[in-house]
Amino acid sequence: METKEKKTKETLSQFITPQQLLEHWKGHRALTRRVIEAFPEDKLFSFSIGGMRPFSELAKELLGIGVPGAKGMATDQWEQLDENVDLGGSKEKLLQLWDQATEELNHWWAQIPVEHFQDTVIAFGQYEDKVYCSILYFIDNETHHRGQGYVYLRALGVEPPNFWER
Amino acid sequence: METKEKKTKETLSQFITPQQLLEHWKGHRALTRRVIEAFPEDKLFSFSIGGMRPFSELAKELLGIGVPGAKGMATDQWEQLDENVDLGGSKEKLLQLWDQATEELNHWWAQIPVEHFQDTVIAFGQYEDKVYCSILYFIDNETHHRGQGYVYLRALGVEPPNFWER
Repeated sequence: METKEKKTKETLSQFITPQQLLEHWKGHRALTRRVIEAFPEDKLFSFSIGGMRPFSELAKELLGIGVPGAKGMATDQWEQLDENVDLGGSKEKLLQLWDQATEELNHWWAQIPVEHFQDTVIAFGQYEDKVYCSILYFIDNETHHRGQGYVYLRALGVEPPNFWER
Repeated sequence: METKEKKTKETLSQFITPQQLLEHWKGHRALTRRVIEAFPEDKLFSFSIGGMRPFSELAKELLGIGVPGAKGMATDQWEQLDENVDLGGSKEKLLQLWDQATEELNHWWAQIPVEHFQDTVIAFGQYEDKVYCSILYFIDNETHHRGQGYVYLRALGVEPPNFWER
């Protein structure tokens, strides 16, 4: 069960290190980006099933949570949840904001002290939970909504990106 | 940022402990169970969108991955991926197998040494990755497919369980 790579004693005693968690999250973000790309632009902003939101609205929710969430964990300063970015009906604009958010995630993540993950905070001034639970929730929420995007794409006859590629 | 609960030095240096990860996974399993329950029995086995599998088939995949995956990580003995459990068209049978799997997950999880999470293994004899990556993949895959189940339920006019309740 041993691998040849160097593992420090600290790494060996952990399920996942903070840096590995960031890479895991960014793998999810890269997949979500490909799902956004896969939508025909008009369908991205209009198509829905069962009264749910179009995928552009789900993506706006994810933009409102990810980086503001990481920034809050890093600074302990929280603004209200804001999912209302103006995309002007443009897929390109959404992809640009998505990439910008990924850069900002790198920035804020590096400023979260490792000891903080086990603290309890009130994210966005309203959701009380441990930091690691909230962060996993942000990622799970992305995975959840992206899974919904897969159904939209299938219903539109569009082949979604492979789930296992990150 | 300090909470009153007791945190050991070891816990403080980790994003998430193995025990916390198990609880996180089981929270997801409890939600997926509620999604299974929410389906009308006939729709569970027949309803689909865009040529996708009915939710019963997705649940069978999850049964084939979760416990066999945890068992493999604990024992280093892998059987081939097997998603073909016979449910006989019964939601009750699926729920029973789901609960049994949760019990077995407790059993096998306790036998995975903490040092093993950073090892590289070939899960199910075919998927090479670090143990922690594979385990997160198992959970993400459940979240992904469950998100699809939410769209099925909405399309059927059924209110899904709250995503944030675990």
